[in-house]
Order: sequence, then C-alpha cells, then structure tokens
Amino acid sequence: VRNDDPAGLAAAVLAGDRLRLARAITWVENEAPAAIPLLAALYRHGGHSHIIGITGAPGTGKSTLVTVLAQSLRSAGQTVGIVAIDPTSPFTGGAILGDRVRMRGLSGDPGIFIRSMATRGSLGGLSKTTGDVVTVLDAAGFDCILVETVGVGQAEVEIAGTAHTTVVVEAPGLGDDIQAIKAGILEIADILVVNKADRPGADKTVQALRMMLELEQPGGPRPTHHHGRLFSVPTATAPPAVDTGAWTVPVLKTVAATGEGVADLHARIAAHRAWLVASGELAVREQLRSARTLENILAAELHRRIAARLPDMTALVAAVRRREQDPYTAAQTLLAAW
Amino acid sequence: VRNDDPAGLAAAVLAGDRLRLARAITWVENEAPAAIPLLAALYRHGGHSHIIGITGAPGTGKSTLVTVLAQSLRSAGQTVGIVAIDPTSPFTGGAILGDRVRMRGLSGDPGIFIRSMATRGSLGGLSKTTGDVVTVLDAAGFDCILVETVGVGQAEVEIAGTAHTTVVVEAPGLGDDIQAIKAGILEIADILVVNKADRPGADKTVQALRMMLELEQPGGPRPTHHHGRLFSVPTATAPPAVDTGAWTVPVLKTVAATGEGVADLHARIAAHRAWLVASGELAVREQLRSARTLENILAAELHRRIAARLPDMTALVAAVRRREQDPYTAAQTLLAAW
Repeated sequence: VRNDDPAGLAAAVLAGDRLRLARAITWVENEAPAAIPLLAALYRHGGHSHIIGITGAPGTGKSTLVTVLAQSLRSAGQTVGIVAIDPTSPFTGGAILGDRVRMRGLSGDPGIFIRSMATRGSLGGLSKTTGDVVTVLDAAGFDCILVETVGVGQAEVEIAGTAHTTVVVEAPGLGDDIQAIKAGILEIADILVVNKADRPGADKTVQALRMMLELEQPGGPRPTHHHGRLFSVPTATAPPAVDTGAWTVPVLKTVAATGEGVADLHARIAAHRAWLVASGELAVREQLRSARTLENILAAELHRRIAARLPDMTALVAAVRRREQDPYTAAQTLLAAW
Repeated sequence: VRNDDPAGLAAAVLAGDRLRLARAITWVENEAPAAIPLLAALYRHGGHSHIIGITGAPGTGKSTLVTVLAQSLRSAGQTVGIVAIDPTSPFTGGAILGDRVRMRGLSGDPGIFIRSMATRGSLGGLSKTTGDVVTVLDAAGFDCILVETVGVGQAEVEIAGTAHTTVVVEAPGLGDDIQAIKAGILEIADILVVNKADRPGADKTVQALRMMLELEQPGGPRPTHHHGRLFSVPTATAPPAVDTGAWTVPVLKTVAATGEGVADLHARIAAHRAWLVASGELAVREQLRSARTLENILAAELHRRIAARLPDMTALVAAVRRREQDPYTAAQTLLAAW
C-alpha cells in the first residue's frame, strides 16, 4: 500500500489489517487530501457497528469504566474499537496520557483497537473528525465502537449524543451546582451510571438522578433541527414491528476500579441495542447521524475551500484592532468579492 | 427606536439606554438580519472595556465568585457587564436558572448588566455570538466585562481564552483525573483561583497547581494559528515602554460564599490589566482577539449563506443512511455545483 493509494489502504482496512487501520486513521486525523477518497471507499461497508458514546464530567472515572467495559465486551467475544477524545492543551496540542495509560491492560489483543484523539483548537471540527474515525472503525468491522468524550462542552455532548447508545457517567459528591450540567446531559442519556459507587453519597446521587429523570419528558423524539445547523431533515419514521414501549433510562451503580456493576452495564447496553432495533428507533437515530455526518463534512469542506482562497489578512486584522474598520462590514466585503 | 432601525438602536445603546441594550443583545443572539449593521455601527465605539474571562469545571462555584467579584468591582465605582454562558440542554434550549438566581443580589443596579446565554446546539457558533455580545457591551461603555463559561469544552476554553485577563477557577478535591483538564486550561490562565478554599484539601490543590505552573514554559507567546483556523496572522509586536518582565500567574484562594479572598482577586485582576498595558501584551492580545473576531464572523456568514442555498436534503440523507451514497462524495458533488 503506497501512501497515496486510498483504494489500496481501504482494501487493507476492510481485510482487517490493523497496521493499515492505524495509518488510515492518521490520514483522517491529519485531513490528508487522500482521506476523502479513503473515507468515501470505506463508508458503504459500514453500518454494522454498535456505536456507544460515553461521556461525563472530569473526575467520574470514565476512562477506567471504558477500559473494564471493553474487557467485558471482549470476554463476550465482541471486537471493540475505542475512540477517546482527550481534552488537550489548545496551545501545545499534546495529548494527555494519564488516563490512557490505564488502558494499556487492553493492549496486545488484536480484537481491540484504541485511538486517543487530541482536541487541538479545532472549533467545530471535532465532531467531523470523530465521525470520520468512527466511519473507518465501522468499516473495519468492529462489533462495538466506544466513543469516550471527557467534559461537558457542547461539542463533546454532541459527539456522544450521536451514538446509538449514550452512557452518561456521574460520580458521587461532585458538587451541588453540577445540576447545571446534568440537565443538559440527561436528555442525551440512554443509560446513566454512577461510578465510584463505593464512595459516600452514591445512593444520594442515584436518587437525585432518578428524580431528575422523572421530571424529564419521557420518550420525546430527538429533534432533527437546531439553531446553527446547515439544514434540517424530517425525522425518519419506521413503525415498530411490535409496540415495544418507550425506553426507560436505567440508573446503574458501578465501581470501575473493581469491576463491580460492569456486567450489568454491559447487559443494559445490549438490551438498549435490542430495543433500538425492535422499536424502530435505530432508523431514527441513523437518520440523524447521517444528516449530521453530511453536515459536518459539508462544513469542513467549505471551511477548507475558503481558507485556501482568503487573501493575506494581516493589514485587515490590524485595521480591525485599531477600530478603523469593523469586522462585520469587512466580512461582508470579503465575501461579496466572490 | 423601531425594531428595524439598527442605527437608532446603536445610538440608544451608546447613550446608555439599558432597555435598548437588552434589545440589541436579543437581536444579536437571534441573529436578526439587522444585527449586522447594528454591530458594525457599535464596533468602532468599543475597545475600552477590560474583558475578563472566568472559566472552570462545574462544581467550582464560579457563578458565586462572579457575583461577588462583580459586587467588588461595583464598590470600586466600576460598571460591570456579565455574559454567562449556560450549558443548557441541546434539546430544549432552556437556560438553567439555578446558578443565575444567585446573581439576583446584583439586580436593580444600573451600573451592572447581566446576560445569560444558552449554548443551544450551535456548533462553533458560541464563540461568535459571545464575541458579538461583548462588542455590544463594550460599545455600551462598561468598564469591565465578565465572560463566565461553565465547563471544559474547547469552545468554552476558547471564549475565556480570548479575554484580556483569564481567571481559571478550581476547587479542592474534584477528583484525581482532573489533571487532564488542568493541563489544557493552565495555559490560558492569567490568574488561578482555588475557590471553596475552606474545604479540606485546598492547600494540596494550591500546591498541585503551583507545581503544574512551574512545569509550564513561562512567558511563551500565544500562538496565532491553530489547526482548523481560517487564517493566521503575525503576532503583533509592540515593544514595551519599560521592561516589565513576564507575568507570574498567581494561585489565589477564595471562599466566594463568604467573600474571603475576593478583594485580593480584584486587586490581581487590576494588576494584570496594568501589566498588559505596560508590557505591550495588550496589543498582542487585541491582535489575536481581532483576528478571531473576524474569523468567527466570516465563518458564521459563510454558514448562513450556504444554509440558504442548500437544496432539500431529505432524499440525500436517506440515501446516506441506507449507505447507497457516501457523504464524502455527496458533499463534493453538492459543492462542485456552485
């Protein structure tokens, strides 16, 4: 496989070559020109993985939970791809390895593939690149893809929220104003986990989450249009073969460090997958995922094309800084020139 | 002032009309067409406010700290604008009012203006809208503008990081894997605060932060180009009138609930402002702010224009969902048509 041969690289990925898989992901992360034909070639072969988003605030022990969940999935004979989004320095771009080191217990197993991605000052680009990496892993045939996002930012929540199954991880005693986060994050949760459940206050946190869930409107459809989106699409409506009812979000307790509760989490994830299929909700989510994928690609490609055509901005930026020009009129003038 | 009269609204904002100020911000938030001439008219009158970013993870008591800091600034005779970014539900768009309620102690004072902004599923748009609101408050003549971001996402860090002075708030005992966040956030901090310093472990957190600061490269310039940016500009180099040396990031302890340490925080913020001016660093940061402002406006305007010209995407999204089409080729085809 030559570096400039996307078709050859795609074929290697589809054939299960793990070394070439790593290279394909590097192309995608670096936004190499050849990444587009590579992804185009891989996309049609995907659609079989169960994509599981795992998100939560720092301090909840998410990474350890992802590690033991991956081990549990492997024990059940499933192959597992892991995409871990690291909240790296926007300035150095270096990935924080602390949490990842714990995942090393998983290395050396060809049925598992771990990729840690830096967030690097890329505004809005995170969703697109993460989606592209999922496209590659999906085509490579992993049964499950775990997408771990650290934090509570909009982009992170969005990434986790476009999974088939979203697991939101909490921990006891993370402060009383954490409600601000929970309210936003609860609506994307299919499964709630209180990790570090051997700590004081775990039952109180479970109760608080159950109460918040009861206050939520149950079973409401996920909207397909948001403020700031490029386009909206109608929700896919696939009538269920049998009436399976709404999914009831469970609140589970785990102690990732000892493995306690992880088998139950694994079982609930599998149950959610079964419900998605039986209820027709899988098609609804796939519709949303497809729309967002297309939108992210369009936005990134537009960005790339514009960046290539912009003139040198130094003088204009200096004029804006001195308030001799306003940036609103300047932007209109720049765009009118095309 | 008619609803469709941006020049009249701009004049009212510049004259200190608080009711019209609130309306101007609503235009900006709703991206009303008239918001562009309004912002263009206001921009040239700004540049006098001290923009202070305050960020940190949930549970650190940031909002209370912002409230008492604002009270301290008011006591010193300064007028204060507050922009609080709420991590709202991406689905309902409703703002979480819990933290904001505490700010009510500030209401009824014409020298203060508080605006809580929802993040609403807007990918990447958060920076742009926040910048626009700052443009309005700056033109309205507030001495200080506090921009409070909750969380650790890239967008939130970016917003706080483009302030003149960035305060990063921590709290004792937020878990051991919080380092993952700190490393990214430390590089944007001009002042570090350990709030809730009456809790156990406060001194340990202060020590840990000091150690992490020592490991950082001190006084390095802020980069002007990042992966994913539309354009880069050279760093402004304004030779300092006198050699003021590098800024040493202080680590302060506060108990916002009792007001302990807030006077010191206020003093350090003022000292940082003085250093920015004396060292020439203010011009450097203004250059960066101007470049990002222009970039955010360009990106948002492009987004708007493209959205208006996209055909109905329903059939294409369905084809992508069924994997009959790949979204990468589809995006190229759509863009090639223009």
